[in-house]
Amino acid sequence: MTEQNIFDNQHFFDGYKEIRGREVNYNNAIEQPAMSKMLPCLTEKTVLDLGCGYGYNCTDFIERGAKKVLGIDISKKMLEVAKAESSDPHIEYMQLSMTEISSLNMKFDLVYSSLAIHYIEDFKKLMTDIYGLLNNGGTLLFSQESPFITASPKVGGYNLDENGRRVSFTFSDYSICGAREEHWLDTDYIKYHRTFSKIFTDIAQSGFVISEVCEPMPDKSAVEKCPSMSGQYIKPQFLIVKAVKKG
Amino acid sequence: MTEQNIFDNQHFFDGYKEIRGREVNYNNAIEQPAMSKMLPCLTEKTVLDLGCGYGYNCTDFIERGAKKVLGIDISKKMLEVAKAESSDPHIEYMQLSMTEISSLNMKFDLVYSSLAIHYIEDFKKLMTDIYGLLNNGGTLLFSQESPFITASPKVGGYNLDENGRRVSFTFSDYSICGAREEHWLDTDYIKYHRTFSKIFTDIAQSGFVISEVCEPMPDKSAVEKCPSMSGQYIKPQFLIVKAVKKG
Repeated sequence: MTEQNIFDNQHFFDGYKEIRGREVNYNNAIEQPAMSKMLPCLTEKTVLDLGCGYGYNCTDFIERGAKKVLGIDISKKMLEVAKAESSDPHIEYMQLSMTEISSLNMKFDLVYSSLAIHYIEDFKKLMTDIYGLLNNGGTLLFSQESPFITASPKVGGYNLDENGRRVSFTFSDYSICGAREEHWLDTDYIKYHRTFSKIFTDIAQSGFVISEVCEPMPDKSAVEKCPSMSGQYIKPQFLIVKAVKKG
Repeated sequence: MTEQNIFDNQHFFDGYKEIRGREVNYNNAIEQPAMSKMLPCLTEKTVLDLGCGYGYNCTDFIERGAKKVLGIDISKKMLEVAKAESSDPHIEYMQLSMTEISSLNMKFDLVYSSLAIHYIEDFKKLMTDIYGLLNNGGTLLFSQESPFITASPKVGGYNLDENGRRVSFTFSDYSICGAREEHWLDTDYIKYHRTFSKIFTDIAQSGFVISEVCEPMPDKSAVEKCPSMSGQYIKPQFLIVKAVKKG
Protein backbone atom coordinates (compact mmCIF):
# COMPACT_ATOMS: atom_id res chain seq x y z
CA MET A 1 0.00 0.00 0.00
CA THR A 2 1.21 3.50 -0.85
CA GLU A 3 0.75 5.83 2.09
CA GLN A 4 -1.62 8.72 1.52
CA ASN A 5 0.35 11.98 1.45
CA ILE A 6 -2.11 14.81 0.80
CA PHE A 7 0.08 17.53 2.30
CA ASP A 8 2.56 17.16 -0.56
CA ASN A 9 -0.28 18.20 -2.91
CA GLN A 10 0.55 21.90 -3.43
CA HIS A 11 -3.08 23.05 -3.59
CA PHE A 12 -4.04 21.25 -0.38
CA PHE A 13 -0.86 22.41 1.33
CA ASP A 14 -1.56 26.07 0.43
CA GLY A 15 -5.22 25.90 1.48
CA TYR A 16 -4.34 24.28 4.79
CA LYS A 17 -1.62 26.85 5.49
CA GLU A 18 -4.10 29.70 4.90
CA ILE A 19 -6.63 28.23 7.38
CA ARG A 20 -4.00 27.50 10.03
CA GLY A 21 -2.77 31.10 9.69
CA ARG A 22 -6.14 32.61 10.67
CA GLU A 23 -6.27 34.46 13.98
CA VAL A 24 -9.01 32.21 15.38
CA ASN A 25 -9.27 28.69 14.01
CA TYR A 26 -10.36 25.36 15.45
CA ASN A 27 -6.77 24.36 16.15
CA ASN A 28 -5.52 27.41 18.03
CA ALA A 29 -8.83 28.13 19.82
CA ILE A 30 -10.00 24.65 20.77
CA GLU A 31 -7.63 21.76 20.20
CA GLN A 32 -4.20 23.21 20.99
CA PRO A 33 -5.09 24.90 24.34
CA ALA A 34 -6.59 21.62 25.59
CA MET A 35 -3.60 19.59 24.42
CA SER A 36 -1.21 22.04 26.15
CA LYS A 37 -3.06 21.65 29.46
CA MET A 38 -2.81 17.87 29.23
CA LEU A 39 0.95 17.74 28.59
CA PRO A 40 3.04 16.06 31.29
CA CYS A 41 6.11 17.82 32.70
CA LEU A 42 8.76 17.72 29.94
CA THR A 43 11.89 18.78 31.83
CA GLU A 44 14.81 16.66 30.53
CA LYS A 45 12.37 14.38 28.68
CA THR A 46 12.44 12.94 25.17
CA VAL A 47 9.50 13.41 22.81
CA LEU A 48 8.31 11.85 19.56
CA ASP A 49 5.82 13.98 17.59
CA LEU A 50 3.80 11.90 15.08
CA GLY A 51 2.70 14.01 12.14
CA CYS A 52 4.67 17.02 13.36
CA GLY A 53 3.63 19.25 10.42
CA TYR A 54 5.15 22.72 10.72
CA GLY A 55 7.06 21.66 13.87
CA TYR A 56 5.42 24.30 16.07
CA ASN A 57 4.79 21.76 18.83
CA CYS A 58 8.37 20.48 18.61
CA THR A 59 9.75 23.93 19.49
CA ASP A 60 7.15 24.23 22.25
CA PHE A 61 8.38 20.95 23.77
CA ILE A 62 11.94 22.32 23.79
CA GLU A 63 10.73 25.53 25.47
CA ARG A 64 9.09 23.33 28.10
CA GLY A 65 12.44 21.74 28.89
CA ALA A 66 12.54 18.65 26.70
CA LYS A 67 16.11 17.59 25.98
CA LYS A 68 15.43 15.86 22.64
CA VAL A 69 12.51 15.94 20.18
CA LEU A 70 12.02 13.83 17.09
CA GLY A 71 9.35 15.13 14.71
CA ILE A 72 8.21 12.80 11.97
CA ASP A 73 5.89 13.54 9.06
CA ILE A 74 5.09 11.82 5.82
CA SER A 75 5.06 15.16 3.97
CA LYS A 76 8.30 16.57 2.61
CA LYS A 77 6.68 20.00 2.16
CA MET A 78 5.61 20.10 5.79
CA LEU A 79 9.11 19.16 6.93
CA GLU A 80 10.61 21.93 4.76
CA VAL A 81 8.48 24.45 6.64
CA ALA A 82 9.40 22.81 9.96
CA LYS A 83 13.12 22.98 9.22
CA ALA A 84 12.83 26.64 8.13
CA GLU A 85 10.50 27.89 10.88
CA SER A 86 10.94 25.52 13.82
CA SER A 87 14.56 24.48 13.92
CA ASP A 88 16.53 23.86 17.10
CA PRO A 89 19.72 21.87 17.81
CA HIS A 90 17.68 19.50 19.99
CA ILE A 91 15.01 18.83 17.36
CA GLU A 92 15.42 16.29 14.59
CA TYR A 93 12.96 16.09 11.69
CA MET A 94 12.53 12.89 9.71
CA GLN A 95 10.32 12.00 6.76
CA LEU A 96 8.59 8.86 8.02
CA SER A 97 5.05 7.54 8.07
CA MET A 98 3.69 6.77 11.52
CA THR A 99 2.92 3.28 10.20
CA GLU A 100 6.69 2.71 10.23
CA ILE A 101 7.69 3.91 13.70
CA SER A 102 8.49 0.42 14.92
CA SER A 103 11.70 0.83 12.85
CA LEU A 104 12.88 3.60 15.21
CA ASN A 105 15.61 2.38 17.51
CA MET A 106 14.90 4.78 20.37
CA LYS A 107 12.69 5.18 23.43
CA PHE A 108 10.68 8.25 24.42
CA ASP A 109 9.00 9.73 27.51
CA LEU A 110 6.17 11.27 25.50
CA VAL A 111 4.62 10.26 22.21
CA TYR A 112 2.48 13.12 20.97
CA SER A 113 0.23 13.48 17.95
CA SER A 114 -2.04 16.35 16.98
CA LEU A 115 -4.84 15.62 14.51
CA ALA A 116 -3.05 13.05 12.41
CA ILE A 117 -4.05 9.65 13.72
CA HIS A 118 -7.39 9.59 11.86
CA TYR A 119 -5.35 9.18 8.63
CA ILE A 120 -4.03 5.81 9.85
CA GLU A 121 -5.88 2.62 9.01
CA ASP A 122 -4.54 0.18 11.60
CA PHE A 123 -5.15 1.87 14.95
CA LYS A 124 -4.42 -1.20 17.08
CA LYS A 125 -1.00 -1.68 15.47
CA LEU A 126 -0.21 2.01 15.96
CA MET A 127 -1.08 1.80 19.67
CA THR A 128 1.09 -1.30 20.06
CA ASP A 129 3.98 0.38 18.21
CA ILE A 130 3.71 3.50 20.40
CA TYR A 131 3.62 1.39 23.56
CA GLY A 132 6.82 -0.30 22.43
CA LEU A 133 8.55 3.07 21.88
CA LEU A 134 7.70 4.49 25.32
CA ASN A 135 9.81 4.28 28.43
CA ASN A 136 8.06 2.91 31.53
CA GLY A 137 6.00 5.72 33.01
CA GLY A 138 5.86 7.40 29.60
CA THR A 139 2.80 9.15 28.22
CA LEU A 140 0.81 8.98 25.02
CA LEU A 141 -1.14 12.18 24.27
CA PHE A 142 -3.05 12.44 21.00
CA SER A 143 -5.92 14.31 19.43
CA GLN A 144 -8.04 13.25 16.49
CA GLU A 145 -11.25 14.33 14.85
CA SER A 146 -14.19 13.20 16.95
CA PRO A 147 -15.96 10.00 15.94
CA PHE A 148 -19.05 12.24 15.57
CA ILE A 149 -17.25 13.88 12.62
CA THR A 150 -15.52 10.90 11.08
CA ALA A 151 -18.67 8.71 11.14
CA SER A 152 -20.34 10.08 8.00
CA PRO A 153 -18.57 12.97 6.25
CA LYS A 154 -21.04 12.82 3.36
CA VAL A 155 -24.28 12.39 5.36
CA GLY A 156 -25.77 15.00 7.64
CA GLY A 157 -23.95 17.81 9.39
CA TYR A 158 -25.40 20.74 11.27
CA ASN A 159 -29.10 21.60 11.04
CA LEU A 160 -29.97 25.31 11.16
CA ASP A 161 -32.94 27.20 12.59
CA GLU A 162 -34.79 29.94 10.66
CA ASN A 163 -32.12 32.45 11.74
CA GLY A 164 -29.30 30.32 10.38
CA ARG A 165 -28.08 29.21 13.80
CA ARG A 166 -26.79 25.71 14.37
CA VAL A 167 -29.31 23.78 16.49
CA SER A 168 -28.59 20.08 16.03
CA PHE A 169 -26.32 17.64 14.21
CA THR A 170 -27.11 14.68 11.97
CA PHE A 171 -24.87 11.71 11.26
CA SER A 172 -25.03 8.07 10.22
CA ASP A 173 -23.02 4.83 10.08
CA TYR A 174 -21.32 5.52 13.41
CA SER A 175 -21.14 1.85 14.37
CA ILE A 176 -19.38 0.84 11.15
CA CYS A 177 -15.61 1.36 11.50
CA GLY A 178 -13.51 1.87 8.39
CA ALA A 179 -12.40 4.17 5.58
CA ARG A 180 -14.36 7.32 4.76
CA GLU A 181 -13.86 9.39 1.63
CA GLU A 182 -13.44 13.04 2.49
CA HIS A 183 -13.41 16.11 0.29
CA TRP A 184 -11.80 19.30 1.64
CA LEU A 185 -9.82 22.07 -0.01
CA ASP A 186 -10.74 20.66 -3.44
CA THR A 187 -8.99 17.41 -2.54
CA ASP A 188 -10.30 13.85 -2.15
CA TYR A 189 -8.69 11.78 0.56
CA ILE A 190 -9.33 9.05 3.11
CA LYS A 191 -9.84 9.21 6.85
CA TYR A 192 -10.55 6.26 9.09
CA HIS A 193 -13.59 6.24 11.32
CA ARG A 194 -13.47 4.37 14.60
CA THR A 195 -16.07 4.20 17.34
CA PHE A 196 -15.28 5.42 20.86
CA SER A 197 -15.40 1.79 22.03
CA LYS A 198 -12.89 0.63 19.38
CA ILE A 199 -10.53 3.50 20.26
CA PHE A 200 -10.59 2.93 24.02
CA THR A 201 -10.49 -0.85 23.84
CA ASP A 202 -7.50 -0.82 21.48
CA ILE A 203 -5.63 1.63 23.72
CA ALA A 204 -6.40 -0.43 26.85
CA GLN A 205 -5.54 -3.74 25.23
CA SER A 206 -2.19 -2.40 24.02
CA GLY A 207 -1.24 -2.16 27.69
CA PHE A 208 -1.97 1.51 28.36
CA VAL A 209 -3.72 2.94 31.40
CA ILE A 210 -6.12 5.61 30.12
CA SER A 211 -5.77 8.59 32.45
CA GLU A 212 -7.76 11.43 30.90
CA VAL A 213 -10.14 11.96 27.98
CA CYS A 214 -11.17 15.38 26.70
CA GLU A 215 -13.64 16.70 24.15
CA PRO A 216 -12.40 20.29 24.19
CA MET A 217 -14.70 23.32 24.02
CA PRO A 218 -13.92 26.86 22.83
CA ASP A 219 -13.90 29.57 25.46
CA LYS A 220 -16.30 32.52 25.37
CA SER A 221 -13.93 34.90 23.57
CA ALA A 222 -13.33 32.38 20.78
CA VAL A 223 -17.08 31.96 20.26
CA GLU A 224 -17.49 35.76 20.14
CA LYS A 225 -14.83 36.01 17.43
CA CYS A 226 -16.09 32.94 15.57
CA PRO A 227 -19.82 32.41 16.37
CA SER A 228 -20.06 29.14 14.44
CA MET A 229 -17.92 27.61 17.21
CA SER A 230 -21.03 27.52 19.42
CA GLY A 231 -21.80 24.37 17.41
CA GLN A 232 -19.23 22.68 19.64
CA TYR A 233 -21.85 22.59 22.41
CA ILE A 234 -24.00 20.50 20.06
CA LYS A 235 -21.17 18.12 19.19
CA PRO A 236 -17.41 18.32 19.74
CA GLN A 237 -14.98 18.46 16.82
CA PHE A 238 -12.10 16.75 18.60
CA LEU A 239 -11.27 13.85 20.88
CA ILE A 240 -8.12 13.94 23.02
CA VAL A 241 -6.78 10.94 24.91
CA LYS A 242 -4.00 10.73 27.46
CA ALA A 243 -2.71 7.31 28.47
CA VAL A 244 0.25 6.08 30.46
CA LYS A 245 2.58 3.09 30.14
CA LYS A 246 2.87 1.68 33.65
CA GLY A 247 5.78 -0.71 33.72
CA MET B 1 -32.89 15.31 47.78
CA THR B 2 -35.51 12.57 47.48
CA GLU B 3 -34.26 9.82 45.22
CA GLN B 4 -36.24 9.28 42.04
CA ASN B 5 -38.07 5.95 42.22
CA ILE B 6 -40.07 5.54 39.04
CA PHE B 7 -40.29 1.75 39.22
CA ASP B 8 -42.55 2.01 42.27
CA ASN B 9 -45.03 3.87 40.04
CA GLN B 10 -47.46 1.01 39.17
CA HIS B 11 -48.15 2.21 35.62
CA PHE B 12 -44.44 2.51 34.75
CA PHE B 13 -43.70 -0.79 36.47
CA ASP B 14 -46.39 -2.60 34.44
CA GLY B 15 -45.35 -1.02 31.13
CA TYR B 16 -41.70 -1.86 31.72
CA LYS B 17 -42.52 -5.46 32.66
CA GLU B 18 -44.48 -5.91 29.43
CA ILE B 19 -41.56 -4.65 27.28
CA ARG B 20 -38.99 -6.75 29.10
CA GLY B 21 -41.22 -9.81 28.61
CA ARG B 22 -41.12 -9.54 24.80
CA GLU B 23 -39.28 -12.30 22.93
CA VAL B 24 -36.85 -9.88 21.27
CA ASN B 25 -36.12 -6.61 23.02
CA TYR B 26 -33.11 -4.30 23.22
CA ASN B 27 -32.07 -5.82 26.54
CA ASN B 28 -32.11 -9.50 25.68
CA ALA B 29 -30.92 -9.10 22.07
CA ILE B 30 -28.24 -6.44 22.42
CA GLU B 31 -27.23 -5.37 25.91
CA GLN B 32 -27.39 -8.58 27.93
CA PRO B 33 -25.45 -10.85 25.51
CA ALA B 34 -22.60 -8.29 25.40
CA MET B 35 -22.58 -7.90 29.18
CA SER B 36 -22.46 -11.69 29.62
CA LYS B 37 -19.42 -11.98 27.34
CA MET B 38 -17.59 -9.31 29.34
CA LEU B 39 -18.15 -10.91 32.76
CA PRO B 40 -15.00 -12.07 34.57
CA CYS B 41 -14.81 -15.60 35.98
CA LEU B 42 -17.14 -15.66 39.02
CA THR B 43 -16.16 -18.94 40.68
CA GLU B 44 -16.18 -18.39 44.47
CA LYS B 45 -16.49 -14.62 43.93
CA THR B 46 -18.70 -12.02 45.63
CA VAL B 47 -20.89 -9.72 43.56
CA LEU B 48 -22.78 -6.48 44.12
CA ASP B 49 -25.55 -5.77 41.58
CA LEU B 50 -26.52 -2.07 41.49
CA GLY B 51 -30.14 -1.64 40.39
CA CYS B 52 -30.74 -5.39 40.34
CA GLY B 53 -34.38 -5.09 39.24
CA TYR B 54 -35.99 -8.50 38.86
CA GLY B 55 -32.84 -10.20 40.12
CA TYR B 56 -32.31 -12.21 36.93
CA ASN B 57 -28.62 -11.34 36.81
CA CYS B 58 -28.20 -12.24 40.48
CA THR B 59 -29.31 -15.82 39.83
CA ASP B 60 -27.09 -15.90 36.74
CA PHE B 61 -24.07 -14.93 38.87
CA ILE B 62 -24.84 -17.81 41.27
CA GLU B 63 -25.12 -20.23 38.33
CA ARG B 64 -21.68 -19.01 37.22
CA GLY B 65 -20.21 -20.02 40.58
CA ALA B 66 -20.44 -16.85 42.68
CA LYS B 67 -20.54 -17.66 46.39
CA LYS B 68 -22.44 -14.55 47.49
CA VAL B 69 -24.51 -11.92 45.64
CA LEU B 70 -26.00 -8.74 47.04
CA GLY B 71 -28.66 -7.15 44.84
CA ILE B 72 -29.72 -3.63 45.67
CA ASP B 73 -32.52 -1.59 44.13
CA ILE B 74 -34.37 1.55 45.13
CA SER B 75 -37.71 0.04 44.06
CA LYS B 76 -39.66 -2.07 46.54
CA LYS B 77 -41.85 -3.45 43.74
CA MET B 78 -38.80 -4.61 41.80
CA LEU B 79 -37.40 -6.33 44.86
CA GLU B 80 -40.73 -8.09 45.47
CA VAL B 81 -40.43 -9.63 41.99
CA ALA B 82 -36.78 -10.46 42.62
CA LYS B 83 -37.55 -12.24 45.90
CA ALA B 84 -40.41 -14.18 44.29
CA GLU B 85 -38.72 -15.10 40.99
CA SER B 86 -34.98 -14.98 41.66
CA SER B 87 -34.40 -16.22 45.17
CA ASP B 88 -31.43 -18.28 46.28
CA PRO B 89 -29.82 -18.87 49.67
CA HIS B 90 -26.67 -17.10 48.45
CA ILE B 91 -28.49 -13.99 47.20
CA GLU B 92 -29.48 -11.15 49.46
CA TYR B 93 -31.79 -8.36 48.25
CA MET B 94 -31.75 -4.95 49.88
CA GLN B 95 -33.75 -1.79 49.23
CA LEU B 96 -30.98 0.79 48.84
CA SER B 97 -30.17 3.59 46.45
CA MET B 98 -26.82 3.30 44.72
CA THR B 99 -26.07 6.79 46.01
CA GLU B 100 -25.81 5.17 49.46
CA ILE B 101 -23.52 2.21 48.80
CA SER B 102 -20.65 3.71 50.77
CA SER B 103 -22.68 2.67 53.85
CA LEU B 104 -22.18 -1.02 52.96
CA ASN B 105 -19.63 -2.66 55.21
CA MET B 106 -18.48 -5.30 52.72
CA LYS B 107 -16.05 -5.82 49.84
CA PHE B 108 -16.79 -7.40 46.47
CA ASP B 109 -14.95 -8.97 43.54
CA LEU B 110 -17.41 -7.65 40.97
CA VAL B 111 -19.62 -4.59 41.01
CA TYR B 112 -22.17 -4.91 38.21
CA SER B 113 -24.87 -2.60 36.96
CA SER B 114 -27.18 -3.01 33.99
CA LEU B 115 -28.84 0.14 32.61
CA ALA B 116 -29.29 1.98 35.88
CA ILE B 117 -26.34 4.34 36.23
CA HIS B 118 -27.83 7.01 33.93
CA TYR B 119 -30.37 7.70 36.72
CA ILE B 120 -27.58 8.84 39.04
CA GLU B 121 -26.57 12.49 39.16
CA ASP B 122 -23.09 12.31 40.72
CA PHE B 123 -21.14 9.91 38.53
CA LYS B 124 -17.72 10.72 39.98
CA LYS B 125 -18.90 9.98 43.53
CA LEU B 126 -20.45 6.72 42.37
CA MET B 127 -17.19 5.63 40.74
CA THR B 128 -15.24 6.52 43.89
CA ASP B 129 -17.75 4.63 46.05
CA ILE B 130 -17.55 1.55 43.82
CA TYR B 131 -13.76 1.65 43.85
CA GLY B 132 -13.87 1.66 47.65
CA LEU B 133 -16.14 -1.41 47.72
CA LEU B 134 -13.99 -3.54 45.42
CA ASN B 135 -11.28 -5.94 46.46
CA ASN B 136 -7.89 -5.45 44.77
CA GLY B 137 -8.10 -7.07 41.35
CA GLY B 138 -11.86 -6.60 41.40
CA THR B 139 -13.92 -5.60 38.36
CA LEU B 140 -16.51 -2.95 37.60
CA LEU B 141 -18.81 -3.84 34.71
CA PHE B 142 -21.67 -1.54 33.84
CA SER B 143 -23.95 -0.62 30.98
CA GLN B 144 -25.83 2.60 30.46
CA GLU B 145 -27.75 4.31 27.68
CA SER B 146 -25.31 5.71 25.14
CA PRO B 147 -24.43 9.41 25.37
CA PHE B 148 -25.89 9.61 21.84
CA ILE B 149 -29.28 8.84 23.42
CA THR B 150 -29.04 10.75 26.66
CA ALA B 151 -27.78 13.96 24.96
CA SER B 152 -31.12 15.30 23.77
CA PRO B 153 -34.16 13.10 24.42
CA LYS B 154 -36.50 15.83 23.17
CA VAL B 155 -34.53 16.95 20.09
CA GLY B 156 -33.95 14.84 17.01
CA GLY B 157 -33.99 11.07 16.80
CA TYR B 158 -33.92 8.88 13.71
CA ASN B 159 -34.51 10.35 10.26
CA LEU B 160 -36.36 8.09 7.80
CA ASP B 161 -36.12 7.66 4.03
CA GLU B 162 -39.18 7.56 1.73
CA ASN B 163 -39.66 3.87 2.58
CA GLY B 164 -39.72 4.53 6.30
CA ARG B 165 -36.26 3.10 6.90
CA ARG B 166 -33.91 4.66 9.43
CA VAL B 167 -31.05 6.40 7.60
CA SER B 168 -29.50 8.87 10.04
CA PHE B 169 -29.77 10.24 13.56
CA THR B 170 -30.08 13.80 14.85
CA PHE B 171 -29.14 15.04 18.31
CA SER B 172 -28.09 18.20 20.12
CA ASP B 173 -26.54 19.50 23.35
CA TYR B 174 -24.09 16.59 23.57
CA SER B 175 -21.34 18.69 25.15
CA ILE B 176 -23.56 19.93 27.99
CA CYS B 177 -23.61 17.40 30.83
CA GLY B 178 -26.55 17.35 33.24
CA ALA B 179 -30.17 16.39 33.86
CA ARG B 180 -32.50 15.57 30.97
CA GLU B 181 -36.26 15.27 31.30
CA GLU B 182 -37.49 12.06 29.77
CA HIS B 183 -40.99 10.84 28.97
CA TRP B 184 -41.57 7.12 28.51
CA LEU B 185 -44.47 4.83 29.37
CA ASP B 186 -46.63 7.90 30.18
CA THR B 187 -44.17 8.87 32.88
CA ASP B 188 -41.92 11.93 33.30
CA TYR B 189 -38.55 11.30 34.89
CA ILE B 190 -34.92 12.43 34.90
CA LYS B 191 -31.84 10.88 33.39
CA TYR B 192 -28.35 12.33 33.53
CA HIS B 193 -26.39 12.94 30.36
CA ARG B 194 -22.62 12.70 30.43
CA THR B 195 -20.16 12.95 27.56
CA PHE B 196 -17.84 10.06 26.73
CA SER B 197 -14.92 12.17 27.97
CA LYS B 198 -16.59 12.86 31.34
CA ILE B 199 -17.41 9.17 31.79
CA PHE B 200 -13.92 7.88 30.98
CA THR B 201 -12.06 10.60 32.86
CA ASP B 202 -14.14 10.07 36.01
CA ILE B 203 -13.57 6.32 35.87
CA ALA B 204 -9.82 6.75 35.32
CA GLN B 205 -9.44 9.39 37.99
CA SER B 206 -11.25 7.22 40.53
CA GLY B 207 -8.28 4.85 40.25
CA PHE B 208 -9.65 2.33 37.78
CA VAL B 209 -7.80 0.83 34.82
CA ILE B 210 -10.26 0.79 31.90
CA SER B 211 -9.89 -2.59 30.22
CA GLU B 212 -12.69 -2.83 27.65
CA VAL B 213 -15.38 -0.62 26.17
CA CYS B 214 -18.26 -1.92 24.08
CA GLU B 215 -21.09 -0.38 22.05
CA PRO B 216 -22.97 -3.62 21.47
CA MET B 217 -24.68 -4.48 18.19
CA PRO B 218 -27.61 -6.87 17.56
CA ASP B 219 -26.83 -10.04 15.62
CA LYS B 220 -28.44 -10.82 12.27
CA SER B 221 -31.27 -12.94 13.67
CA ALA B 222 -32.30 -10.17 16.08
CA VAL B 223 -32.44 -7.64 13.21
CA GLU B 224 -34.54 -10.09 11.17
CA LYS B 225 -37.03 -10.43 14.03
CA CYS B 226 -36.95 -6.72 14.87
CA PRO B 227 -35.92 -4.73 11.73
CA SER B 228 -35.80 -1.39 13.55
CA MET B 229 -32.69 -2.70 15.32
CA SER B 230 -30.72 -2.01 12.12
CA GLY B 231 -30.74 1.56 13.45
CA GLN B 232 -27.99 0.40 15.80
CA TYR B 233 -25.54 0.57 12.88
CA ILE B 234 -26.38 4.29 12.64
CA LYS B 235 -25.88 4.88 16.37
CA PRO B 236 -25.62 2.49 19.31
CA GLN B 237 -28.20 2.44 22.09
CA PHE B 238 -25.84 1.31 24.83
CA LEU B 239 -22.38 1.90 26.25
CA ILE B 240 -20.67 -0.82 28.30
CA VAL B 241 -17.50 -0.27 30.30
CA LYS B 242 -15.28 -2.77 32.06
CA ALA B 243 -12.63 -1.48 34.46
CA VAL B 244 -10.34 -3.08 37.01
CA LYS B 245 -9.08 -2.05 40.43
CA LYS B 246 -5.36 -2.81 40.38
CA GLY B 247 -4.07 -2.70 43.93
